[in-house]
Amino acid sequence: MNDCTVTKTSIPATSRTTLRRLPDRGRFQRAEVNAILDEGLLCHVGFALEGQPFVIPTIHARVGDVLYVHGSAASRMLRTLSGGVPVCLTVTLLDGLVLARSAFHHSMNYRSVVVLGTAVEVTEAAEKDAALTAIVEHVLRGRSAQVRPPSPLELKATSVLRLPIEEASAKVRSGPPVDDAEDMTWPVWAGVLPLSLVPGAPIEDPKLMPDMPLPSNVSAYTR
Amino acid sequence: MNDCTVTKTSIPATSRTTLRRLPDRGRFQRAEVNAILDEGLLCHVGFALEGQPFVIPTIHARVGDVLYVHGSAASRMLRTLSGGVPVCLTVTLLDGLVLARSAFHHSMNYRSVVVLGTAVEVTEAAEKDAALTAIVEHVLRGRSAQVRPPSPLELKATSVLRLPIEEASAKVRSGPPVDDAEDMTWPVWAGVLPLSLVPGAPIEDPKLMPDMPLPSNVSAYTR
Repeated sequence: MNDCTVTKTSIPATSRTTLRRLPDRGRFQRAEVNAILDEGLLCHVGFALEGQPFVIPTIHARVGDVLYVHGSAASRMLRTLSGGVPVCLTVTLLDGLVLARSAFHHSMNYRSVVVLGTAVEVTEAAEKDAALTAIVEHVLRGRSAQVRPPSPLELKATSVLRLPIEEASAKVRSGPPVDDAEDMTWPVWAGVLPLSLVPGAPIEDPKLMPDMPLPSNVSAYTR
Repeated sequence: MNDCTVTKTSIPATSRTTLRRLPDRGRFQRAEVNAILDEGLLCHVGFALEGQPFVIPTIHARVGDVLYVHGSAASRMLRTLSGGVPVCLTVTLLDGLVLARSAFHHSMNYRSVVVLGTAVEVTEAAEKDAALTAIVEHVLRGRSAQVRPPSPLELKATSVLRLPIEEASAKVRSGPPVDDAEDMTWPVWAGVLPLSLVPGAPIEDPKLMPDMPLPSNVSAYTR
């Protein structure tokens, strides 16, 4: 009856990440969580400051079972979080518009992961260096070996936060719209309009040195 | 010296939305905030529950100076928010990878809006109806007139939250990477890899009635 698929994956399931409305859709698969975290170019980090929630987009990277986010040590988020504050890190991949016959059943196909936990500042130099390398690699595989590595001054100017992937859940909707039986003859086209994040033609820096070749990780960019 | 552009727009500027690190980049333009809110297909809403922040992706729509989000009345977010709880609604549009010569200056081109405020449940029937129409139109312009409108039962099963756009800020990064002078001869390609959300070929519902034409708002979809 229901052709679409909505799945929810939790690592491990807690009262905060267990899907309440549709518990039969719950699963426990770290691989699915990791794949979504790795594909998403950016995440949204939520934290509260004097009772007000803030949700800030930022770049993340996963190393094993740990997520890293970074930013200027001066930024509001890092000043708030570095003491070890509860955060929520969410990655959402939009896959398409779900165009049903009824207004009510319109939806989107998507894959999302929510990670709950406490982010703490990374102070150990080797871990910080590895995290920043992972963040550059997350943006573009192979890039970290091609570029000028961070200087001691740059490392000092950058804060890195660690968030273990201990309490996390994935939610995925895929497939066609699901209309009520009595709407199946409503005279409108129904289906899915797929959406994907597609690279355009690379735009070289106007100050690029002459004859600098376009590397294959840029020309053949995929996630 | 700095070819890239990072701008921040606040409506009105408050201590919570005024850009602290780079105050000269602040501006006050509602049109820029609205354009980003309208182009983003989904938002991330942050709220706190027993001290734990949650960040949930959801569809939104703007009507004048008000944002609406909806969802099943049973969802965790709406159960938490309907009493009128502080929220942060963030919309982020990813425009490209900024590939610098140094690891440190890697970035992304993006446009984002952060709206702070208190979301309250919409109880008045006409406003709820208009908000749900706006949400369908936000997904696909012209769609609400083509589909079966919500029934009284469906309206009852759906909660709608209203968030006025009173305290909001936009942040935009565009343009090429900005490397330090001493890195300009580092032997690597530098520039921007543009990214955009592109529609694929529409996938018709396997249960679609025969000879149902693809409407032009789907075949020529743009945001």
